[in-house]
Amino acid sequence: MFGLIGRMRASPGKRDELVALLLDGTEAMPGCLSYVVARDPVDADTIWITEVWTDEQSHKASLDLPRVQATIAKARPIIAGFDSQTRTEPVGGVGL
Amino acid sequence: MFGLIGRMRASPGKRDELVALLLDGTEAMPGCLSYVVARDPVDADTIWITEVWTDEQSHKASLDLPRVQATIAKARPIIAGFDSQTRTEPVGGVGL
Repeated sequence: MFGLIGRMRASPGKRDELVALLLDGTEAMPGCLSYVVARDPVDADTIWITEVWTDEQSHKASLDLPRVQATIAKARPIIAGFDSQTRTEPVGGVGL
Repeated sequence: MFGLIGRMRASPGKRDELVALLLDGTEAMPGCLSYVVARDPVDADTIWITEVWTDEQSHKASLDLPRVQATIAKARPIIAGFDSQTRTEPVGGVGL
């Protein structure tokens, strides 16, 4: 499996809007086993996204899906930056 | 929902053993929506654990489950340290 743990910053005051966009745009992605969008409880603009895919190719292919492309276009103006992105190799667990 | 993103270090050479213990000990935990154990692709001793629970109370209660207690006892000797643990507030996503 292929995993990502990312920390993203929304433009000030835009986090709820960005979270809603991300949740709406990430349904029905082939090979996606888990995609969780979370708020940071300390920093009001920070979002955590944790992802598990069957393989890296599925993740790359998802970026070309029309719905994901549309979400990226809508989200870009309210993303202030990407603080970190860590690749992982998920082995297993609950909910996969 | 209540989330955790943690980075743990196994004793040198013990990561596979620790991953297997964690996966075996974390089945059937009430309130656990996701518990993913992943290897770090760069550091050979590092493990990432990402968790989503219905609420923080469920997470706390899980630490008292006999199976989890047994796992902690078996895992402790091969855990070298905890590098970081971040609390999150999951909002939604795929696989929950």
